[in-house]
Amino acid sequence: MNDVTQPVSRTVGILAGMGPAAGVDFVRLFVAACESWLREHGHPVLDQSYPEHWMAQLPVPDRTLALSDASAEQPLDAMARGLRQLASLGATAIAIPCNTAHAWHAALQERVPEVELLHIASETATDVERRGLARVALLATEGTYGAGLYGHAFDALGIQCLLPDQAARKRLMQGIYDGVKAGDLALAQQCFTEVGEQLRAQHGDIALVMACTEIPLALPQAPAARGWTLIDPTAILANALARRAYARA
Amino acid sequence: MNDVTQPVSRTVGILAGMGPAAGVDFVRLFVAACESWLREHGHPVLDQSYPEHWMAQLPVPDRTLALSDASAEQPLDAMARGLRQLASLGATAIAIPCNTAHAWHAALQERVPEVELLHIASETATDVERRGLARVALLATEGTYGAGLYGHAFDALGIQCLLPDQAARKRLMQGIYDGVKAGDLALAQQCFTEVGEQLRAQHGDIALVMACTEIPLALPQAPAARGWTLIDPTAILANALARRAYARA
Repeated sequence: MNDVTQPVSRTVGILAGMGPAAGVDFVRLFVAACESWLREHGHPVLDQSYPEHWMAQLPVPDRTLALSDASAEQPLDAMARGLRQLASLGATAIAIPCNTAHAWHAALQERVPEVELLHIASETATDVERRGLARVALLATEGTYGAGLYGHAFDALGIQCLLPDQAARKRLMQGIYDGVKAGDLALAQQCFTEVGEQLRAQHGDIALVMACTEIPLALPQAPAARGWTLIDPTAILANALARRAYARA
Repeated sequence: MNDVTQPVSRTVGILAGMGPAAGVDFVRLFVAACESWLREHGHPVLDQSYPEHWMAQLPVPDRTLALSDASAEQPLDAMARGLRQLASLGATAIAIPCNTAHAWHAALQERVPEVELLHIASETATDVERRGLARVALLATEGTYGAGLYGHAFDALGIQCLLPDQAARKRLMQGIYDGVKAGDLALAQQCFTEVGEQLRAQHGDIALVMACTEIPLALPQAPAARGWTLIDPTAILANALARRAYARA
C-alpha cells in the first residue's frame, strides 16, 4: 500500500561497466538526482520514495579500439545482451554511462525498441542550449571524436563545438586509459588539466564538456581546474534518467 | 577471446535500495575491492578485468518497522523477488548492503537455495577475529539489536559484543532515519558521535562496529571521530563479495 505522499515511479536501467568506477559515479549521481527531484516536488525522502533501478556492470569490449579496428572484438552484442536483460527486468528507460558506447546508440535502440535508450550527447546539447552557451570545447576519447557524437548533437542546436588538436587528444587518451581506468588519478589530472589549459589559452574561458565518463572522476578535483567552467554529461544523463523514472506513465 | 592475463570471474549480485545511498556506497566499495584483488594477484586493471555484477535498488518496506510491528508491510517478498531476479541473471553469490535485512537471511536463503547469500554479521565477526580483537561495541538499528544478528555471530567466535543503552539506541535511530536517510548528514554525525563518545567513556578505546549501512556514510567523516577505531561491515561484505566473484568455480 503506497503512502499518498509517495511519488509514482517507473523502473529504469543503467548499462555500465565502461569503466566500472564511472558506473558507480553514475548511480551516485542518479540517486542524488532522485533526491533532488523528491525535494523539489515536496515528497519525503524515504528509501521507498526512490524508483526501482537496476545497474548492470558488464565486461564490454573496449569501445574506442572497436571503432578504430574492425577486426577487434566488438562491443555491440555484449551491450545488446545487457539491454535486453534490463528490459526484461521491467526497465522502461535506460542510460549508458559511457560516451563512446553511444556510437552504437542507433543499433542498440533498434535491437531493443521497447525501451527508451537515452542519448548522452543529445541530453548534453539540450542542457548546454538551456544555459545559453554559444560554444564549448570537447574533451573525449578518439572513438567519440571519430564517431562525431557530440558534433552532430551540438550542430543541430547551432552550438559551436571546438576540438583539441591531435597531440592533445593523445594526452586525453593517456589520462583516460593509463590514468583513471588503471587507477592512477594523479596522471589523469595532469593529462586532463594540460589539455584544458591549452584549450583555454586558445579560446579563453570556454566551457569544457567532459565527454568521457572517466574525465569527471579526476578533472574537477584538480587544483589547476578551479574556476574553470566544466560541463558533466554524466550528471546531465543522470538527471535525465531521474526525470524519466518519475515521469507519469 | 580472453587475454591470458585476464582473471576468471563469476557473476555476482547486490540486492540494495535499503537505503539507496548505502547501495551506491556498497558498489563503490565492491569495485574498489575488485581493483585491490586485481593488483594483489598481478592482473592488469582494465574495464574487462572486473566481474559481471548486477545491482538491484528496490523499494523494500522498512526493515526495522517490520520487525517491531507484525502488522506493518513486510520486506520478505520484495527482497525474495529481487534475489530470484539476480539469480536468473546468473549471480552465483549475492550480498545485501543492509544489516537489518539480515533478520530474514535464513528465510531468503531458503527461498533461493541456488545462490550463496552472504551474511554481513558472520563476515564481520570473522574479520574482527582475524584482527585479534577480544571485544567490540555495536552501533545498529533497533531491528538489528532486536534480532541479535551480531550477538550470535560474535558469540560463536568468543568475541564480547557490547551494546549502547536505550537512550543511545534512540539517538542512533534518529541519526539513521532523520539524518542519513533524509539527507541531513550534520544531524547524523551529531547523533553517531554522541553515542560513540558515550561508549568510549564507558569502555575506553573500544572498536565501534558500524552495523547499519547508513552509519559509515556519516560517522568516519566527523571530526570528533578522528582516531577512533571504526569497523565497517559494509566494506568487509564488499571484500567478501569480490573474493567470491574471483573464486574459481
